[in-house]
Amino acid sequence: MTDEQGVPERVRIRFTPSDKEVRVPTGVPIFDAASWNGIAIDSTCGGHGTCKKCKVQILEGSIPVQSLDRRAFSQDQLDDGWRLACVARATGDLLVDVPPMTTRPKAATFGVGRQVILRPAVQKRFVELTEPTLTDQRTDSQRVFDELDDLELTVDLDVYRTLGQTLRESDFKVTAVVVDDRLIAVEPGDTTSRSFGLAFDLGTTTVVANLMDITTGTPAAVTSMLNKQQPYGADVIARISATMLNADALGHLQQLAHETLDTLAKEACAEAGVEANEIYEVALAGNATMVQLALGVNPEPLGVAPFILAARQFENVMASDLGVTAHPRARAVVVPALGAYVGGDIIAGALASGMDRDKRLRLFIDIGTNCEIVIADGERIMATAAPAGPAFEAASIRCGMRAAPGAIEVVKVTDGDLELQVIGDEPAVGVCGSGLVDAVAELVRVGVIDPSGRFVDRDTVMETHPHLAERMTLFGEEKVFVLAEPTSPDGDPVVLSQRDVRELQFAKAAIATGWSLLFEDFGIEEHDIQQVLLAGSFGTYLSAASAVRIGLVPKIPVLRIVSAGNVAGEGAKMVLLSAAERHGVTTLLSEIKYVELSDRTDFQDRFIDQLAFPT
Amino acid sequence: MTDEQGVPERVRIRFTPSDKEVRVPTGVPIFDAASWNGIAIDSTCGGHGTCKKCKVQILEGSIPVQSLDRRAFSQDQLDDGWRLACVARATGDLLVDVPPMTTRPKAATFGVGRQVILRPAVQKRFVELTEPTLTDQRTDSQRVFDELDDLELTVDLDVYRTLGQTLRESDFKVTAVVVDDRLIAVEPGDTTSRSFGLAFDLGTTTVVANLMDITTGTPAAVTSMLNKQQPYGADVIARISATMLNADALGHLQQLAHETLDTLAKEACAEAGVEANEIYEVALAGNATMVQLALGVNPEPLGVAPFILAARQFENVMASDLGVTAHPRARAVVVPALGAYVGGDIIAGALASGMDRDKRLRLFIDIGTNCEIVIADGERIMATAAPAGPAFEAASIRCGMRAAPGAIEVVKVTDGDLELQVIGDEPAVGVCGSGLVDAVAELVRVGVIDPSGRFVDRDTVMETHPHLAERMTLFGEEKVFVLAEPTSPDGDPVVLSQRDVRELQFAKAAIATGWSLLFEDFGIEEHDIQQVLLAGSFGTYLSAASAVRIGLVPKIPVLRIVSAGNVAGEGAKMVLLSAAERHGVTTLLSEIKYVELSDRTDFQDRFIDQLAFPT
Repeated sequence: MTDEQGVPERVRIRFTPSDKEVRVPTGVPIFDAASWNGIAIDSTCGGHGTCKKCKVQILEGSIPVQSLDRRAFSQDQLDDGWRLACVARATGDLLVDVPPMTTRPKAATFGVGRQVILRPAVQKRFVELTEPTLTDQRTDSQRVFDELDDLELTVDLDVYRTLGQTLRESDFKVTAVVVDDRLIAVEPGDTTSRSFGLAFDLGTTTVVANLMDITTGTPAAVTSMLNKQQPYGADVIARISATMLNADALGHLQQLAHETLDTLAKEACAEAGVEANEIYEVALAGNATMVQLALGVNPEPLGVAPFILAARQFENVMASDLGVTAHPRARAVVVPALGAYVGGDIIAGALASGMDRDKRLRLFIDIGTNCEIVIADGERIMATAAPAGPAFEAASIRCGMRAAPGAIEVVKVTDGDLELQVIGDEPAVGVCGSGLVDAVAELVRVGVIDPSGRFVDRDTVMETHPHLAERMTLFGEEKVFVLAEPTSPDGDPVVLSQRDVRELQFAKAAIATGWSLLFEDFGIEEHDIQQVLLAGSFGTYLSAASAVRIGLVPKIPVLRIVSAGNVAGEGAKMVLLSAAERHGVTTLLSEIKYVELSDRTDFQDRFIDQLAFPT
Repeated sequence: MTDEQGVPERVRIRFTPSDKEVRVPTGVPIFDAASWNGIAIDSTCGGHGTCKKCKVQILEGSIPVQSLDRRAFSQDQLDDGWRLACVARATGDLLVDVPPMTTRPKAATFGVGRQVILRPAVQKRFVELTEPTLTDQRTDSQRVFDELDDLELTVDLDVYRTLGQTLRESDFKVTAVVVDDRLIAVEPGDTTSRSFGLAFDLGTTTVVANLMDITTGTPAAVTSMLNKQQPYGADVIARISATMLNADALGHLQQLAHETLDTLAKEACAEAGVEANEIYEVALAGNATMVQLALGVNPEPLGVAPFILAARQFENVMASDLGVTAHPRARAVVVPALGAYVGGDIIAGALASGMDRDKRLRLFIDIGTNCEIVIADGERIMATAAPAGPAFEAASIRCGMRAAPGAIEVVKVTDGDLELQVIGDEPAVGVCGSGLVDAVAELVRVGVIDPSGRFVDRDTVMETHPHLAERMTLFGEEKVFVLAEPTSPDGDPVVLSQRDVRELQFAKAAIATGWSLLFEDFGIEEHDIQQVLLAGSFGTYLSAASAVRIGLVPKIPVLRIVSAGNVAGEGAKMVLLSAAERHGVTTLLSEIKYVELSDRTDFQDRFIDQLAFPT
């Protein structure tokens, strides 16, 4: 496995009769290129070159004949440009004709409008076998293989252990469960309608499980909970530090991750009426630290310069390695990471956002303690990570809280005073990240906070906004602004403190430094950006107008700033449901250029430039 | 995996400059064809198409260009017939030039004069890596891969778990342990001189372990012991029956097999001063029942008609699945079986005897309760199994015993009386299989037993052999012949009974029926056989002359009847030490035609014909 190749060139493939044109990295199989663009090509083997159904005709351009092609086509057909799409790798521009499909493909939409053709690695086949006789002494396994002769299978030992009994107890009518080229189970009778997978978004704070019906691509249940590792600290650095200070911490953190994932899996199964052994595959997206902790891989090199991953891709992982109760031979596909601070969550998010495909110049931002930024224009793609610090973590903000009932999530200045939206329409008890950004943005707009980030003198504010000035007071030595009065006589008000403003200022400066340096490397200007995607739960609630106003995102029309939602989870679902998208991740990874900020000499200067709020 | 293909055609490959010509099945890689015939071709990846060192030039005949060839050669070189030997599959007659090797190949002799080029699946590489920096953030695993760029590796999760720590604690100087395309370990420092494997011969009665130094191909220690499953019965049918009668028996038999194998492994390690985690691979040859029991695979379908294997090849087996203490990620290669009664032990034996390569017409016989017979002439190969019954098991013979001290192993009539050889030169307490065959053969020769198998009348014998006649007496109603007097006044003599003769007669008739039916299917006569190989421990001690005399083997000159020794164990060693021989097993398996005797209508008639002793 070589997971860090050079950046490949791109080639242009036009498909008929759909007349769609795509640009893909050189070397990508035509099958994947078509699939990524919503063009379905027949296949039953999932692109392993064994079913020989993915026949296409190369009308312009050329692709060398592979040995598998010789098994599928006559010499005349080869001369006419017929090739198997799964082994035909585009190395130059092509015009490819795709014959009509014999079966109607299933597709579903994920992430930011990504149309995904369902082609899961898991497939089930019901087979009715003839019983052995003295003149037909084929082995039990061969009897199964012969009914699956479009596949070249390898078999787990456990399957052999019970195969003889299963066949004989079910009158040789069984369902074969195949994942890629592995026969993982032979089940009595016809179980083809029951096939499930789990897609996890393993966040530092929140963990989400999507139980997916693999045959239909629809969710059977969604569950989420806080990561049980939270007592070890709110962010990844705290958890890595724990493993460095205490030899038992890694094992314990791994255990806590497993408990979190397994609790969610069991809840989802219970909710949907699915048995654990009907889950045949698991996909997981998480940042590099969460992934290494969950797999029991020592995370220490992630936490100290020069910030080194054990591997981008952990390729031989079972669901049981993640502590998830599923079919005992269920595999886990862990979305690979680009670097220590651009993890599988971001790669999954970039996939679900179509960052590698969309021809618009787009910026993807996942805001958090570590802020990941991706820029792409359909030709090139670059990523970086900016150390935003704890501003978006509740703990570092005086009245900070997670986005939960009682949290102020929207702040507006209307008619000279504040208008608040509180989650759950309850009395406000704190402020969450989006409320913080809103509050600062509005107070900057109306002049309560000046561009340098200081609270303006109370008397000055009184002249223009007397209601707001009345909210300005002191807590000890520190200036604060009262967002909401106490809910009880002996309670505390919800305030925005001068230090809170500073925290946010530092965070937005780090983030803006990140994207502005990326723009420079990419050779574009701020106003060239055609779309900004705000990823993650924080991005979902953030006001685009406020984000622009404080300079957290480039200054572009607000309508071009889009909440992308939980794209990491969406990417995990795509990986679970489509072998082509799974290959797409590898291609994406080979294309992204990682820009390391921590050794940039211009980082500090740029950071200071970005500290002020835009005027 | 399709393990039961049709019989392939053979093609002729001539190699220059060695000027050796071989005939191999069509589709065999040139690399393997050369290796099987003692012609070494450069390679470091073990034939996986990644090292691109196995360059050969096709001088006559043609082989299509594969995509891997395009990476290794220019168009001019391709036009000149250059190909990679590991991916070039011969489908017609060829003349192939093999360039001189840059390294001198190691080879060793195994089995019946088989010269094996050492090319184990296990390889160790010492690498000195550069340390990561902010400008070189390659992952820890990539850093290792980049030093092994002739291999395309996949990595076990456990390796990733400790990789970071191992690299940093050993100043990034480490030894990579690769088995085929799996990186199974990264060890601190240079451990390249320490690399071991275990080759097991798992017999129903006796189990042998060969601890091999993989780098030199020499044995480090050999240990053997009785199979701990013995309390469940002496033969495979008894053990299969046990699993059918008692639900716990399979688990217990598996446990006993594991204890046997692990005891031998530990003894061998202790003897040779080898650590268990220096054993990186295990090879095992055994009959189908022993293999399925050891792997915990339900053996019931083996024991009842139509006698069905779970699989010919169990492909995903770890040493730990056999209960063997070795490196935790050591794989186990289990030699595949042809049928329920022609197991991996026979396939390993046929490999070590060169049954698929020798151009002479040869017969391979492994005598036991079940007698396996293979016939081959370098073009075709056929096998069958004959139900010999328990004659060669001590328990069914009145004074039978295993070949241990006190057992009569040689019987001769000289100067009118018996001359005995007893194992250990001790007073005789019983007779082992070879002594039984000798005794009957000699008594038939001198007329004490008539061709129909009956003891001749005592008075008639008295006329020609008075000393022998004196040994003829009655035990109750049954005629017996005293081979040795009691060792103590109240002891019993060692006798040959009329029933013993009948048991042997039935056994030899079954065996002779087996080979005579094979001869018929093969289209040859008994006297055409150029060599008989007697395999297994019984074959080692059996007198060729006696075997011919009672009709156990075809009537050919005694010098052409050869003891092959423990060829199953030798085959296991070859599989352990050579990837090419390992592929050779698969080819061998696809070539052997299995002849089932139990549904032959002519079996009974032929059996009755064979009951009489030759005159």
